[in-house]
Amino acid sequence: MRIAVVAPSCRLTEEAAERVQAIAARRGDCEVVIHPQCFLSAGHFAGPDAARLTALREVMADPSVDAVWYARGGYGSNRIAVAALDDIPAAARNKVYLGYSDAGFLHAGFYKAGLEVAWGPMPQDVVRDGGEAAVNRALDWLVSRDPSALEAGLDGPAMAFNLTVLSNLLGTPLEPDFAGVELLVEDIGEHLYRIDRSMFHLTAGEAIRKVRRIRLGRVADILPNDPPFAGDEAAIVEDWCRRSGIPFGGRADIGHDTANRVVPFPLRND
Amino acid sequence: MRIAVVAPSCRLTEEAAERVQAIAARRGDCEVVIHPQCFLSAGHFAGPDAARLTALREVMADPSVDAVWYARGGYGSNRIAVAALDDIPAAARNKVYLGYSDAGFLHAGFYKAGLEVAWGPMPQDVVRDGGEAAVNRALDWLVSRDPSALEAGLDGPAMAFNLTVLSNLLGTPLEPDFAGVELLVEDIGEHLYRIDRSMFHLTAGEAIRKVRRIRLGRVADILPNDPPFAGDEAAIVEDWCRRSGIPFGGRADIGHDTANRVVPFPLRND
Repeated sequence: MRIAVVAPSCRLTEEAAERVQAIAARRGDCEVVIHPQCFLSAGHFAGPDAARLTALREVMADPSVDAVWYARGGYGSNRIAVAALDDIPAAARNKVYLGYSDAGFLHAGFYKAGLEVAWGPMPQDVVRDGGEAAVNRALDWLVSRDPSALEAGLDGPAMAFNLTVLSNLLGTPLEPDFAGVELLVEDIGEHLYRIDRSMFHLTAGEAIRKVRRIRLGRVADILPNDPPFAGDEAAIVEDWCRRSGIPFGGRADIGHDTANRVVPFPLRND
Repeated sequence: MRIAVVAPSCRLTEEAAERVQAIAARRGDCEVVIHPQCFLSAGHFAGPDAARLTALREVMADPSVDAVWYARGGYGSNRIAVAALDDIPAAARNKVYLGYSDAGFLHAGFYKAGLEVAWGPMPQDVVRDGGEAAVNRALDWLVSRDPSALEAGLDGPAMAFNLTVLSNLLGTPLEPDFAGVELLVEDIGEHLYRIDRSMFHLTAGEAIRKVRRIRLGRVADILPNDPPFAGDEAAIVEDWCRRSGIPFGGRADIGHDTANRVVPFPLRND
């Protein structure tokens, strides 16, 4: 299997690239090709918008690429996601797109366009403690669709998003149809009042009220709330589910960490 | 003029309440009545949702109240804003509602419901350096519609919002019709990448593309971007305006500070 790594958001470190390629070499069941765009730098981003878009469209159009693996999150894929949906090449439909966090902008738009996308660990995760396991989990799923890589509670069509990213794509051309899917959300580096505000935003609109259930992944590195918020992240999500009539399904095994599991989006045959 | 202060978001301090009432007493042209709900405390909020909603609806329904002045921002008015729109009492239509920041959730919904709302300084601002001038500016406008209190560049229908608050009300029942208005936005305590993300969210959707122009108020206390973002807040807003075909009108004289000016929303006669 040939896996192309591009960076639609922030820059991949050389260390992460080398370690992921070493893992792939040891496995012997896949080749991980790091696009040179991954190491570009332009302010916050892994190169200017045009360079990130060109690299993404290049691997989408390459029939020899079986999977596109987003290098890392951060911020920036939204700046090229709408343009990436223009005139999707035929070869883009014969591959899978894997990543999480900021990649949610692309996941939303690509799912909407009928491409196969999945939430799951990314190359830059390799530098976290236990990162090799996360990278192998992603590769196990990419290479053989190993069911042990999946979030264990999946029981039907599901999508996973970073909560703040999801909030920022609602109402844009990237917004997909959420009807009937289980929605898994997680977040990192937010105050609890912001988690509450994002959940208001999600659940007050019509788009998210169509989901069949919400489950909450991990909310990491919560910033101090002044004064203390009263109630933790699970109470917040459960409360907004109750207010909006969306079933709350408890916790989910996803997050900005090396235990993060794979959540394939539904395959669309329309 | 009788001005009622309620706190739909966070708690007012006793010091601010006393100082604002002293200013009103010295002026002699208005009475500022602080609702006891302003001093309640429940976690992040000035009392539970029910207490905040009850106080707000009480002053809305009170025919002796000429103006409702939101005590301060913070976070929380969204949790009661939709309920505040139910069965609006007739007396609620004979008064004006003043505040900014988190009060934007109420402003949006109340404007949509045909009430008279305005962006402007709030009681808690009195404790800022130069806060007395900000409070007097708000009172000058409430008491006599003093034009010197207004944002100087207004030349037609306008609305002002905190950028992040506005992003979080799009697509909800609070979202008003933005057709033909000049939109003034400001923010505080965000990273530049978040300003960029919020501007993407705003300008990628249809609702905000109907405005006639966007101007940018102050963006205060910007959090460090790692790596540096490349481009300041004005470049970010101008860029998203250009991408979305919305005219960018330069800077506006609003912000989380004591120079913050009044921006009356359009009066609706429908």
